[in-house]
Amino acid sequence: MRDESIFDLDQLNEECGVFAVFGHPEAARLTYYGLHALQHRGQESAGIVTTDGEQFRVHRGMGLVTEVFQNDQLERLTGQIAIGHVRYSTTGGTGLKNAQPLVFNQAQGELAIATNGNLVNAVRLRRELETTGSILQTTTDTEVIAHFMARSQKETLQKQVKEALNRVVGAYALLILTNQELIVALDPHGLRPLSLGMLEDAYIFSSETCAFEVVGAKFIREIQPGELLVLNREGMVSTHFTKPQPRSICSFEYIYFARPDSDLGGINIHQARKRLGKKLYEEAPVEADVVTGVPDSSISAAIGFAEAAQIPYELGLIKNRYVGRTFIQPTQELREQGVRMKLNAVREVVAGKRVVMVDDSIVRGTTSRRIVNLLREAGAIEVHIRVSSPPVIGPCFYGIDIADKKALIAANHSLDEMCKILGADSLSFLSVEGMLEAIGRPENEKNRGHCLACFTEQYPTLIEEENQYPMVLGGER
Amino acid sequence: MRDESIFDLDQLNEECGVFAVFGHPEAARLTYYGLHALQHRGQESAGIVTTDGEQFRVHRGMGLVTEVFQNDQLERLTGQIAIGHVRYSTTGGTGLKNAQPLVFNQAQGELAIATNGNLVNAVRLRRELETTGSILQTTTDTEVIAHFMARSQKETLQKQVKEALNRVVGAYALLILTNQELIVALDPHGLRPLSLGMLEDAYIFSSETCAFEVVGAKFIREIQPGELLVLNREGMVSTHFTKPQPRSICSFEYIYFARPDSDLGGINIHQARKRLGKKLYEEAPVEADVVTGVPDSSISAAIGFAEAAQIPYELGLIKNRYVGRTFIQPTQELREQGVRMKLNAVREVVAGKRVVMVDDSIVRGTTSRRIVNLLREAGAIEVHIRVSSPPVIGPCFYGIDIADKKALIAANHSLDEMCKILGADSLSFLSVEGMLEAIGRPENEKNRGHCLACFTEQYPTLIEEENQYPMVLGGER
Amino acid sequence: MRDESIFDLDQLNEECGVFAVFGHPEAARLTYYGLHALQHRGQESAGIVTTDGEQFRVHRGMGLVTEVFQNDQLERLTGQIAIGHVRYSTTGGTGLKNAQPLVFNQAQGELAIATNGNLVNAVRLRRELETTGSILQTTTDTEVIAHFMARSQKETLQKQVKEALNRVVGAYALLILTNQELIVALDPHGLRPLSLGMLEDAYIFSSETCAFEVVGAKFIREIQPGELLVLNREGMVSTHFTKPQPRSICSFEYIYFARPDSDLGGINIHQARKRLGKKLYEEAPVEADVVTGVPDSSISAAIGFAEAAQIPYELGLIKNRYVGRTFIQPTQELREQGVRMKLNAVREVVAGKRVVMVDDSIVRGTTSRRIVNLLREAGAIEVHIRVSSPPVIGPCFYGIDIADKKALIAANHSLDEMCKILGADSLSFLSVEGMLEAIGRPENEKNRGHCLACFTEQYPTLIEEENQYPMVLGGER
Amino acid sequence: MRDESIFDLDQLNEECGVFAVFGHPEAARLTYYGLHALQHRGQESAGIVTTDGEQFRVHRGMGLVTEVFQNDQLERLTGQIAIGHVRYSTTGGTGLKNAQPLVFNQAQGELAIATNGNLVNAVRLRRELETTGSILQTTTDTEVIAHFMARSQKETLQKQVKEALNRVVGAYALLILTNQELIVALDPHGLRPLSLGMLEDAYIFSSETCAFEVVGAKFIREIQPGELLVLNREGMVSTHFTKPQPRSICSFEYIYFARPDSDLGGINIHQARKRLGKKLYEEAPVEADVVTGVPDSSISAAIGFAEAAQIPYELGLIKNRYVGRTFIQPTQELREQGVRMKLNAVREVVAGKRVVMVDDSIVRGTTSRRIVNLLREAGAIEVHIRVSSPPVIGPCFYGIDIADKKALIAANHSLDEMCKILGADSLSFLSVEGMLEAIGRPENEKNRGHCLACFTEQYPTLIEEENQYPMVLGGER
Repeated sequence: MRDESIFDLDQLNEECGVFAVFGHPEAARLTYYGLHALQHRGQESAGIVTTDGEQFRVHRGMGLVTEVFQNDQLERLTGQIAIGHVRYSTTGGTGLKNAQPLVFNQAQGELAIATNGNLVNAVRLRRELETTGSILQTTTDTEVIAHFMARSQKETLQKQVKEALNRVVGAYALLILTNQELIVALDPHGLRPLSLGMLEDAYIFSSETCAFEVVGAKFIREIQPGELLVLNREGMVSTHFTKPQPRSICSFEYIYFARPDSDLGGINIHQARKRLGKKLYEEAPVEADVVTGVPDSSISAAIGFAEAAQIPYELGLIKNRYVGRTFIQPTQELREQGVRMKLNAVREVVAGKRVVMVDDSIVRGTTSRRIVNLLREAGAIEVHIRVSSPPVIGPCFYGIDIADKKALIAANHSLDEMCKILGADSLSFLSVEGMLEAIGRPENEKNRGHCLACFTEQYPTLIEEENQYPMVLGGER
Repeated sequence: MRDESIFDLDQLNEECGVFAVFGHPEAARLTYYGLHALQHRGQESAGIVTTDGEQFRVHRGMGLVTEVFQNDQLERLTGQIAIGHVRYSTTGGTGLKNAQPLVFNQAQGELAIATNGNLVNAVRLRRELETTGSILQTTTDTEVIAHFMARSQKETLQKQVKEALNRVVGAYALLILTNQELIVALDPHGLRPLSLGMLEDAYIFSSETCAFEVVGAKFIREIQPGELLVLNREGMVSTHFTKPQPRSICSFEYIYFARPDSDLGGINIHQARKRLGKKLYEEAPVEADVVTGVPDSSISAAIGFAEAAQIPYELGLIKNRYVGRTFIQPTQELREQGVRMKLNAVREVVAGKRVVMVDDSIVRGTTSRRIVNLLREAGAIEVHIRVSSPPVIGPCFYGIDIADKKALIAANHSLDEMCKILGADSLSFLSVEGMLEAIGRPENEKNRGHCLACFTEQYPTLIEEENQYPMVLGGER
Repeated sequence: MRDESIFDLDQLNEECGVFAVFGHPEAARLTYYGLHALQHRGQESAGIVTTDGEQFRVHRGMGLVTEVFQNDQLERLTGQIAIGHVRYSTTGGTGLKNAQPLVFNQAQGELAIATNGNLVNAVRLRRELETTGSILQTTTDTEVIAHFMARSQKETLQKQVKEALNRVVGAYALLILTNQELIVALDPHGLRPLSLGMLEDAYIFSSETCAFEVVGAKFIREIQPGELLVLNREGMVSTHFTKPQPRSICSFEYIYFARPDSDLGGINIHQARKRLGKKLYEEAPVEADVVTGVPDSSISAAIGFAEAAQIPYELGLIKNRYVGRTFIQPTQELREQGVRMKLNAVREVVAGKRVVMVDDSIVRGTTSRRIVNLLREAGAIEVHIRVSSPPVIGPCFYGIDIADKKALIAANHSLDEMCKILGADSLSFLSVEGMLEAIGRPENEKNRGHCLACFTEQYPTLIEEENQYPMVLGGER
Repeated sequence: MRDESIFDLDQLNEECGVFAVFGHPEAARLTYYGLHALQHRGQESAGIVTTDGEQFRVHRGMGLVTEVFQNDQLERLTGQIAIGHVRYSTTGGTGLKNAQPLVFNQAQGELAIATNGNLVNAVRLRRELETTGSILQTTTDTEVIAHFMARSQKETLQKQVKEALNRVVGAYALLILTNQELIVALDPHGLRPLSLGMLEDAYIFSSETCAFEVVGAKFIREIQPGELLVLNREGMVSTHFTKPQPRSICSFEYIYFARPDSDLGGINIHQARKRLGKKLYEEAPVEADVVTGVPDSSISAAIGFAEAAQIPYELGLIKNRYVGRTFIQPTQELREQGVRMKLNAVREVVAGKRVVMVDDSIVRGTTSRRIVNLLREAGAIEVHIRVSSPPVIGPCFYGIDIADKKALIAANHSLDEMCKILGADSLSFLSVEGMLEAIGRPENEKNRGHCLACFTEQYPTLIEEENQYPMVLGGER
């Protein structure tokens, strides 16, 4: 499941990761480790803001967490409260201006905001702000929230936040920092993941639980849809800024985004993926000699498929670990070499074999076609694609870079057509029902607790017409 | 199997990689792709030298291939002949001075040299050169060869090379470039890998065959021990610069170094490792609930072990892909977080389970101890270490960064002691016989064609006393 | 006339320079040359914004014009309209955020602003903006103007600008760019310099006329106090946004800031300074052997003094041209060496001589004392300081970095005390009357057309109390 | 006197500067200040090597002294002995490889060498070294000396140096450092300047005396032709490595290179130049309204000329101080603007005037022609060029970048032709006799102690034919 460019073989752009620490003397350093554990959610920029109760320290930069932060920077980031952010990588780079956390000077003092997600009424809200005299500095939706807070005449920050959040519609995990308080909120549908942990007496917030492990914190609970937490000198208070909706957590977190060692809704991601692979074999068995997964995100599903099928699981595709971000575009005649820079088929493993190629998802289909081709060139006599998620037929407006409907192969072609386009001997997708069963969330939630919009076109919120192109909160339009 | 630093969880330092193209209009670009495929053999520096028959173009830099080369640099590297080099990463960095290919101006004109390997009489040779009036610029053994060539009074380059190679003793895959000729040589024991491929009419040389796939070349054959190839306007001529010895290819290439999609001696690396895992189960079975491998190099062996044992293979350890080269050392109190930046145990997978942890090798044991610890903290009730190679009891003098005998855990402790030190419930190594059988090289070669020195202390060459500490050809002492 | 730091021997911080081109195919390149000619007015950052009528191209950076702009950047700055800015250098750096031109996205589209000068009611205006819901991104006064424009409900840009300018009080030369229009304005007192030139059919605006020479443009006229020029498809229209006040051009432009090859009010700067030197001799003659000037800004005055006095003019003080911006602070014991890095007395010239040291101004006196000391150590037997401007007794609120009254030597000491503090044999300042006569502006303007506030404490505008510390428009507070 | 490129209006490439400290705890820091004072002698690279008696510390880099050295670097450069070097700037840059001091590892230990000057038999010597087995790493002549030292079988460093210096012919001021000794030498003709100073008990060596002032040292004496000084634990011993020749100090040091505040042969440079200007007026008087000098090197001569002529000295040409090293080449149509980036004529000063333009030298004539043109465009009605040195008719082989005879305007044209080419109303050069008289060195030295080769083609050494193109010791060929 990846896009057109021959170099973006496995990048479905993620929508950022957030991390926060409240009440620890090493707040910045813990945030550094936490962001590093969330690095897969965004590689374009990284930033940390700390406060010592008096003033902010800010460091943001383009690149990976380990590139942006050196020891010097961390030492300057003093204070017991920190919020951090990693931002997804786009081709064509968007520059430091949009790197989060965003920092503002308001009448009440300094304010920092970091979000993961996307608003679906941002276009209208920006226009409203601009025509009534506000000047927006970034192209992020995050700034829209800050401006509504600045305009609020309410007397406390908490009330200003509530007023602002009741103007915006969309998906967001939100961190707001002042020199006195940390405020944490999740959108009314709980579309994005956000969890609470503790390390000794300190509160930790993270997009994924794997970061708790890394910093040695204990997972406490997930933040609830519509919940708003206020942390200050008096401790932590939980309220709701709106009537919560049933949880609709993004399915793609299970399928592709989250790290295998994270848990989501009490379910381990690796094991969920392995079950997706097993279920896929049950729904679409095939006779074959080897099972291989498209690295890295499809490995768990491939292992599950192989176990269920009793077919050997092999490393039939090798991903180069040193890919880097500044590729040299191949010349026309060396185009194939460019493809193989990222991914190579192992001749000895696949030559003369019937190969099952397990992929976690197919969006445009261009990459899958190339991988089939690599396998055939390496001598595979049959290639059977098994996809451990349902066909993607609708765009995402909540922060995942799933494009325009016209580009989605499954929205425009029958299964047979797709199989032909991809050059496979057979092609099967997992059913929506099978997926939900394999993931295994409790039955008593609506949609069983998932956002399935990209598979069903049933969106949990209203999508305003002028927003009907994908945007990224914490991203650039 | 790796060294003391908490950040070097999986780096047994490799000894460099070489790649060459003779007779292709896109020589530099092919070399770029080739070096990228060999990046796992060295991440410290990268360099390419090309010639158009008139003059050299040189570009070298510190860092990964994709960092060192941008399009601009490649465009300047004109010419149909190119040699390239990637160099291993040491802690404490050694600087650009030693980045290869080394380039010299000699009486006969420009000369570039790139090597993979290590000399075992270099200390004496350097002293000889210096006391008789030569000035050495680098601390690489490679330069020693250049000086002996410069001093040779023979009339052709080929004869000068032969004279020089008969002075040096050790392990090396060697590329020498002038504006007229490319010379390729392998040490008399064939300790290091080097293969010949073809892309249309162009000759390609590479440390590993995976790079042939990447550039679209066809594998032709491996270079023979003591072989010297001269490529010039008249074509390619093969000779020997010395009486060849039986092949003694480094065992660690199979166990750890080479990429899974490379073949060596006609044997695919991934499959050899899977067989090592199977054989390991046969020699040392264990009752357990899950099998996990230390990523990345032990994955193939773990899959083989799991298949043979009929125990589920799981991702029990997750490696962070975004580790980067400039870590911030953790403070004392965040030491554990530092460890987990690289590797994290998956609680849901191992909690309450009897875990087989397959590792490809154990050198010092420090990392293995930490991984056992990670698994136990994540709730594993038993941890059984299974090592898919024999105990390492002797240092390597041929280019692998296997240190001082005093640091080798197996050279100083019994199996029981080791098991206790590592904190495991049981510990088993593969036997030398089992390893050779699993790799499966033809029987009719002495040592079955392998260098087993680090397992047996039987070194295929004389080791001069003053050289009895590990050095790296293409590295710095 | 310079500040405390031993390294800032000759930096009275200038308040920026602006340059604009309307209607030339090489607009960005001309602006690059123009800014380079204005480099003495600001070395901290440089920036250019161009428009092709459809969209902006922006490049800004920290450092000198030649450091910020390479050919690549200039080539991307397409379009026939450009505005540019150089910003003064502060110790303690202020970062890219405040680099001008500032660029905003407003309801009506993109907007860029560049200013030279300082507002005197900015503190109150910022507070007003923030408490009514605006978020300011920079700490520049320039942004205040943009916010008042954004809030204006007037229907044209020109009217919005007028409304905003009627809210602010202070000194400013102002450039505003949209994709359709260039607007140019000067404060009601004309405190800062700004001139109009033409190059073929293109209009050029520059803080100083020397930049016209450099780009080959012809000087047309100076912009008038309170004038507002609108340039668009229909041509250029001149209006006034307020009732103009009598011109009060900053005296320090003549004394110190402007480049010797600029003209201001029709008067060449070098020649004005030479007359200041002559007048100074007339007012305060002295018997001596050599005349020397403090390089570079006092050279013209020293030549004038020497000519009038018929005493040889010599290079008694040599300034190192390669000073650079990142000095290494000297250790305590090498403190004197640090001083001499910038300025050295020429022993052979001054030893055994009675020396007249001409300085253009004295603010704190610390540097003058050091220079006297250098001359004495080099053997001068008498040192007579002659200052070609009156004593500075009041701070500047209009954009010159003349500090706190407590730091001004002449505001706190009698002439005799000063002479003793500076260690001179005699000390004389030019009178205000003498200065005005020497500069020679026409008599019919109030104050003869000068702002004399720092010499007389008569400020041409009201200074709000909360603004009574020096601020810099286009600078950071 | 400058070369063809429109951007190199005033760069006659200098041949480097050297500085050394023996026996001071702040050796590196003093060298930093000393090199900074010698910065005008070379802006391409800078380097310092120190020793604490045990090992070297080395830092070299491209750029100005203040760019290459930050506090961190200086702090690492521990030890009481230091040698330093600044290298001249060439267009087309030559890279770090040739940055001095060069450092070698020899049989006897570490060795560092820094030189100012040029050998005239280097081509033959390099060939000799290369054909007998040495490999040279740089293209500097300095390395040739190191190789002859390495080959010497003499038992002490001092004797090895003597042997090596008796092989080379040319101009050089030479510093050699080991962990035990500092050796200082000057070529047999004393073509390059080198002086000894003292700071407390420490010995200081510097290319120019201005650096003594800057570090607070006292000038002791100049190093003699053929002198060799050895400084070690026992103190300083002076010997000669060859029979000294009469001193032939480079005339251009007086005319152009040396800083005005340096003394050479007991003569202050500024005052010598002023006398050159006076003498020039005596030899070639002219009726005119203003005298102006080409900044910066011709200012002293212009002042002298004006004083003698009783014509006002004015700043008729203004040099931009912020020129920087990375110019953007102007497009064809903005070519004139490019010229004016460096130099601008002051219209108010020269318009309607008869102008004497004093230049210190004319080499190719291209720049002079452009300056005449600038003056005329600014309205000068007559332009009289007066050159304060004789016509340059021969190339320099001793380290000054005076090119090929074919490019020298005075070697190929009569005075009248030159006047026409330059577009001047009159043109006069100073005579050789007049120059020597004005400089005023004692009569009893042959050639009165000067090298006059570029004016007379009488070279003080044999010039080997194959060396008959200009080379730079410490430069690149």
